[in-house]
Amino acid sequence: MTGEASKISYGDESPIAAFATAPGNSALTLIRCSGKGVIEMFSQVFTPAGKKSSEGKAHLENAGGNTVIHGWIVAANEKIDEVLVSLFRAPRSYTGEDSLDICCHGGSSAGKAVMAALKSAGFRDALPGEFTFRAFINGKLDLTRCESVMELVSAKTDAGRRHAVSRLMGSIEKEINGIKSRLVQVLAGAEIFLDYSEDEIGADANEIAGILPYKDIALEALEQLKKLSASWQLERIYQEGITLVIAGRPNAGKSSLFNLLLKEDRAIVTEMPGTTRDWIEAFVSIEGIPVRLVDTAGLRDASDSVEKIGVERSRKLLQEAEIVLYLIDGAYGLTNEDKEFICGLTCEARLVAWSKCDIALPPQPFPLNDISPLSVSAKTGEGLIELYKAIASAVLLQTAAEQGVSLGTKRQKTLVDSACAALEEALAMAESEGSELDLIAPLLREAVSLLGEITGEVSTADILEEMFSRFCVGK
Amino acid sequence: MTGEASKISYGDESPIAAFATAPGNSALTLIRCSGKGVIEMFSQVFTPAGKKSSEGKAHLENAGGNTVIHGWIVAANEKIDEVLVSLFRAPRSYTGEDSLDICCHGGSSAGKAVMAALKSAGFRDALPGEFTFRAFINGKLDLTRCESVMELVSAKTDAGRRHAVSRLMGSIEKEINGIKSRLVQVLAGAEIFLDYSEDEIGADANEIAGILPYKDIALEALEQLKKLSASWQLERIYQEGITLVIAGRPNAGKSSLFNLLLKEDRAIVTEMPGTTRDWIEAFVSIEGIPVRLVDTAGLRDASDSVEKIGVERSRKLLQEAEIVLYLIDGAYGLTNEDKEFICGLTCEARLVAWSKCDIALPPQPFPLNDISPLSVSAKTGEGLIELYKAIASAVLLQTAAEQGVSLGTKRQKTLVDSACAALEEALAMAESEGSELDLIAPLLREAVSLLGEITGEVSTADILEEMFSRFCVGK
Repeated sequence: MTGEASKISYGDESPIAAFATAPGNSALTLIRCSGKGVIEMFSQVFTPAGKKSSEGKAHLENAGGNTVIHGWIVAANEKIDEVLVSLFRAPRSYTGEDSLDICCHGGSSAGKAVMAALKSAGFRDALPGEFTFRAFINGKLDLTRCESVMELVSAKTDAGRRHAVSRLMGSIEKEINGIKSRLVQVLAGAEIFLDYSEDEIGADANEIAGILPYKDIALEALEQLKKLSASWQLERIYQEGITLVIAGRPNAGKSSLFNLLLKEDRAIVTEMPGTTRDWIEAFVSIEGIPVRLVDTAGLRDASDSVEKIGVERSRKLLQEAEIVLYLIDGAYGLTNEDKEFICGLTCEARLVAWSKCDIALPPQPFPLNDISPLSVSAKTGEGLIELYKAIASAVLLQTAAEQGVSLGTKRQKTLVDSACAALEEALAMAESEGSELDLIAPLLREAVSLLGEITGEVSTADILEEMFSRFCVGK
Repeated sequence: MTGEASKISYGDESPIAAFATAPGNSALTLIRCSGKGVIEMFSQVFTPAGKKSSEGKAHLENAGGNTVIHGWIVAANEKIDEVLVSLFRAPRSYTGEDSLDICCHGGSSAGKAVMAALKSAGFRDALPGEFTFRAFINGKLDLTRCESVMELVSAKTDAGRRHAVSRLMGSIEKEINGIKSRLVQVLAGAEIFLDYSEDEIGADANEIAGILPYKDIALEALEQLKKLSASWQLERIYQEGITLVIAGRPNAGKSSLFNLLLKEDRAIVTEMPGTTRDWIEAFVSIEGIPVRLVDTAGLRDASDSVEKIGVERSRKLLQEAEIVLYLIDGAYGLTNEDKEFICGLTCEARLVAWSKCDIALPPQPFPLNDISPLSVSAKTGEGLIELYKAIASAVLLQTAAEQGVSLGTKRQKTLVDSACAALEEALAMAESEGSELDLIAPLLREAVSLLGEITGEVSTADILEEMFSRFCVGK
């Protein structure tokens, strides 16, 4: 699927190993191993503390599951590193197989040397997501929980983590299974008639009426599916974040506000290098929403041709932005240029703020009717909390923000939408005169099957491989 | 010691927590906890899988040492993360205290949220090196082994790791204790006479002759100390690396060779950002030696004033370099400028190589008598292995490279040197006529005490705090 390199494919049970922690300066590094015969293979390079190397194998084989053994990785008679090995016995492990977590010393050398020793003993590199793949195959996790593991490790904010944890606990699996059992109920009713109709040759409109008592159940299921589908919009924002561009005339205080938002925010996720000549950007968490904050330094400064390129890029950024925060120089006042710019904004949400509110009072009322500008001072931090709230509301207004179970991936959303479409078609068919029952049942069955794909009850090797290959290694 | 921030000081037994793995994208994050009451404190935020939260405490308290428990971190009735907890019971743990290793999900959110929950339960942030400090205090590791832990996690190359592991296994501790017991033997002999002399009032030269049978033992000890002291020179290179500057006229092929050395080398440790306008640098491992490779792009190009600054910096780099590799353009041939430059080099080792040996043959013989130039082709890689060997030999020639135990830190080296000096003074005094035995014994005692400081047998709170505060957090 993924070219020549991937001759090894998901689905064998051979012992695999991978770094499970990030590289870099650290006290410890964790290497995860799993597979059939993993303990015997590992015993070739492990000597328990205070034992002879020849005793390693028996010691490991006699060890119970969920125990930690202290010892040395030894290869070619050389002690490589002192380690702690957590041993898990099938099926009580993450993968459901016999597994080992090897806790080595941190930094760049010890882990590498231990990994080399493992390779020499016969371990192969784990494919991306292969541990979780095995957990799925061995019935430890359904597909939505597998996906939530990846969501959890990539969560950018605490809100993102919270959502992923709820899915890890099985919220989608439960919801989907609930909807599915409703559809199965409807289908059972329909199939009785279908079986009957096959015996009697030909179905008529009266028979179709027989499934109508199930219509309410089907409509409820449809309602649930639509709600789930809608939940992805906000969830996606929690996962991918939104782009907020700060715009305004030169000297309006854009960069000061940008720096304040960065500095005040305690949950900075990461700083992007960006092309600092044209704009500066950084990720911040605003009320749990990951916000890509962009300071368009060059905006509105077009004079020579080089600067024009910068302005062109700024305009492009404005088009990408979900929210534009337009800053009016509080010390200078509103200009026609400001007004034109604000009116010309086509983004999903626009916020307007007076800067420098510590030294200037905004004029009342504001000349643009549909806008209530905020006031903010980058110097004193005044108005910052209100600004945070306004940003969060602007995001939430764009989505059908509702409490409850939410989908975690595009894959889930696509399948939910397809199930919705099939169910809607079945319902429409049931409504229409002269429709055949044996045309409705396959649609219902398709919807059930699509929902089964979400949890992985229905799956193919190709789909699984495609899905897990997007996971990170070690997971 | 370290300002206002460090009101908490090493030496209490309160429960501490720290991240033990590096931040960044990863499958897992490890948080380490240790201290008195750690298990009870942890039970406030932990619910074992499949149990009620009220059962967490009993479950943890009943768990044996070296076991792994699967469960959830729960704070304020919210499930924070699904974790594996390795539980260790005193004294069978790294620190010698009750300890926990919490294996959370990786990435930026889960670990942070778990740490916040731990804090809310009463854990405090561990000070740098505090886990290892506690291991020392509880007699799990002597000071040289503690230091080797830090060496191990900062090892830049596999050779560096190997040396650190040998010290982690106690090679210095053993060596120092051996030397110390020799000195104690000598001291015992001397003190018999000292005691005697105190009874008899005054010691004379004949009594001093009494310790002479021990002179050989003292000399042997001195020999061992000197060998140890000398070992630091090479060890320091393994830890800190050396600087190798590639110099040569423009177009000699410096950058191509630089890139080749980077590309060919499989053990690149890290790339330094450097001030790329003036020079480019990177760390590579050459025969196990960490080499800071510097490409002086601007060297010899002085024309205008801006460029002169670049050349000035290059000259400064040349002064810092332990080794300069001067490249002569093989296609152009040796110039007077090349000759002058090579003759003017004042670094500890200079290597000269003809570049582009794939298209040009170097002239024989070379006009500078004391230099045997190498030939290298950045295009074909020809001569690269010979170059690696020449660099390694040049490094090793600068040191008293010998097999055996080597010191791991400057602290150890300083103490060994001081012990050496005291012992030498004692020996000189024993040789000189009319010297007093009661002046020799204190010198010997001082040497023994200094050696005791190396392993930590003799220590003060200040020294320990100063030492461990330089460790990384989580270690």
